Amino acid sequence: MEIRKVYLDNSATTFVSNDVLREMIPTFNSTFGNANSSNSYGREARALVDLSRERIAKAIGAKANEIYFTSGGTESNNWAIRGIAHKLKEKGNHIITSAIEHSSILESCKALEKEGFKVTYLKADASGIINLAELMHYIRKDTILISIMAANNEIGTIQNIQAIAQTAHEKGIIFHTDAVQAFGAINFHVEDMGIDVMSISSHKIYGPKGVGALYIREGVEIEPLIYGGEQEDGLRGGTSNVPGIVGFGKASEIAVRDMNINMHKIRGLRDYFLKALTAKVTNFTINGHPHQRLQGLLSITFEGVEGESLATLLDMKGIAISTGSACNGGSHRISHVLNAIGLDANQAKSTVRISIGKHNTKEELDYVVDAIAESVERLRAMSPIRLKKKKLED
Amino acid sequence: MEIRKVYLDNSATTFVSNDVLREMIPTFNSTFGNANSSNSYGREARALVDLSRERIAKAIGAKANEIYFTSGGTESNNWAIRGIAHKLKEKGNHIITSAIEHSSILESCKALEKEGFKVTYLKADASGIINLAELMHYIRKDTILISIMAANNEIGTIQNIQAIAQTAHEKGIIFHTDAVQAFGAINFHVEDMGIDVMSISSHKIYGPKGVGALYIREGVEIEPLIYGGEQEDGLRGGTSNVPGIVGFGKASEIAVRDMNINMHKIRGLRDYFLKALTAKVTNFTINGHPHQRLQGLLSITFEGVEGESLATLLDMKGIAISTGSACNGGSHRISHVLNAIGLDANQAKSTVRISIGKHNTKEELDYVVDAIAESVERLRAMSPIRLKKKKLED
Repeated sequence: MEIRKVYLDNSATTFVSNDVLREMIPTFNSTFGNANSSNSYGREARALVDLSRERIAKAIGAKANEIYFTSGGTESNNWAIRGIAHKLKEKGNHIITSAIEHSSILESCKALEKEGFKVTYLKADASGIINLAELMHYIRKDTILISIMAANNEIGTIQNIQAIAQTAHEKGIIFHTDAVQAFGAINFHVEDMGIDVMSISSHKIYGPKGVGALYIREGVEIEPLIYGGEQEDGLRGGTSNVPGIVGFGKASEIAVRDMNINMHKIRGLRDYFLKALTAKVTNFTINGHPHQRLQGLLSITFEGVEGESLATLLDMKGIAISTGSACNGGSHRISHVLNAIGLDANQAKSTVRISIGKHNTKEELDYVVDAIAESVERLRAMSPIRLKKKKLED
Repeated sequence: MEIRKVYLDNSATTFVSNDVLREMIPTFNSTFGNANSSNSYGREARALVDLSRERIAKAIGAKANEIYFTSGGTESNNWAIRGIAHKLKEKGNHIITSAIEHSSILESCKALEKEGFKVTYLKADASGIINLAELMHYIRKDTILISIMAANNEIGTIQNIQAIAQTAHEKGIIFHTDAVQAFGAINFHVEDMGIDVMSISSHKIYGPKGVGALYIREGVEIEPLIYGGEQEDGLRGGTSNVPGIVGFGKASEIAVRDMNINMHKIRGLRDYFLKALTAKVTNFTINGHPHQRLQGLLSITFEGVEGESLATLLDMKGIAISTGSACNGGSHRISHVLNAIGLDANQAKSTVRISIGKHNTKEELDYVVDAIAESVERLRAMSPIRLKKKKLED
């Protein structure tokens, strides 16, 4: 079989699309000014930053002055959690989040716990959904912030964000959502949905790495995370990353413009892939919610197969997938998300993440299904777990 | 006179050089993987990040594992100050810095003061130099950190970093330097110079915006500023900004390789400019140290001239300069640096920053000198201060 390169790790990061790169290039060596300088180079750069701010605002139903640029989703999440907690610490010191959040949320919460804040980590059900009754149960008088991700980066489950936001608001609590994985895949209208603060990132939607944003609804108060100059309304210092911001703006515009077409295409590819996989491979399960989910992200547990080994065999055939999320790619710990939805250690270790992007093709997926079938068969043949079972059955 | 575009705001930011951009481009759409993914795309990206880390380490005489990538100089400064203070808070709560630091240092210190830390802001003399005896005087038993910038971004004065580092170490105190403005303009060998922690940035040395680094000497302990995944040895979360990091690595390599040539060229241009200016314009002074200074950065006070007005007239002629630093470009406050070296409000308002880069030419400077001479003459003719003085002389 001829080796081909197939990229199915689109939830980890995407390439930068040509339309995005084309807008970025001149900002490196032509409109390269410091957006805070008042000379013509600065004003040109500032105009580009302003345009991007408007594009992103429009993409999520916000106002331009509610968009604050950051270095990415992780900074946005850190800023949201710690910036709001520190600002509201006189009002209360209790935060509610979930056990399946991204590590940037969980680690930020842990850092706050060391400072004396109290954090409740809500469980998720087997499909990855947060229980609204449980959320209500844990709300206290001193709860100042609820942070629940819009869509999970490992299993793709989409939360009932609007209902959670409503619950928070009924109690006068700020609601933040980490929408890094969901932005560009589902429709956001922050005002209609009642989102107060939202983290988004560029490099998951065919924009450049190193840039993201925090939507902060007008009226929501927050401490800076990165102090400095007067950039971003005095709330986030640092010379504006003009190329990154321009790329993010364009990528956001395209992502929202083409969302329906892309999601239709990706859903088609996903269904095609699963049908083909089902025909050739037995004993696998798809994790996460059956339909309330990101179209392209598939967390698959192959019984009796080491996920790491499967990923390695596929990699040798030119196919890029993940085990768990890339954020913990170097780690051999069991995924906290898979653990939270009830997978045992063996099941978690037998899980891979395959994420389909808008550029993938059926031909690529045919190749991938054949490669998976062959690899799974080989690994199962070698697996001591499988062998043991067979012996028991004999 | 024909209008031409002349960029003399190189201390605010530089364009990205072709050699740097050439290395960056493939990382947007070819080697675009997540450097934390273990698949081939991830490994390719990781190799590029590693190469950049080595290049930057080499440029400053450090080891690769002592380089931590950030989103820029401002984040590096925030991280150094707050990360070290928080880590060492059991040991002491006193920090020494100077009154002429960048706003990202000063604001980080102010944030720490709100938490109960004590901060001493050393004065600078009229040339912008920190007094070593004064530094020693203020060191206390509970001093945990000394942070003094290597070269000032508004007046260009270079500090006696090695002597300051030695003083810190004699008392067992961590020494950090903000080298954002100095990196690429003076030689750094962190080990020889005794620097424990150092902030550097890419967009001042013909690299891209949105990326910087913090050098943290092996053994120095620090709390993260941005929590998350296992990137940067678990100390700085967030998907690696591969294009930015690659650009920064290449820019660092070139900056150090060509430093002598560039500095020789820039010094020549600077001398040429000052000679021509002196021949055509009277009553101006150069701020900062006469020789212990960055070659290309000129802070000039034109007596009886509003700096804002001069910058505007030059801008209309296509010439980009700054009033104060770009970081406070939007602000009409008096520069804290000019104030600290003893300029009064009128003198500070009459000051502009002209920063020469490696690409500027004598022909450009001829044009600029003529434009300044004409503008200064016009503004002085209109100036009430000047008129008043003349009347008194009559």
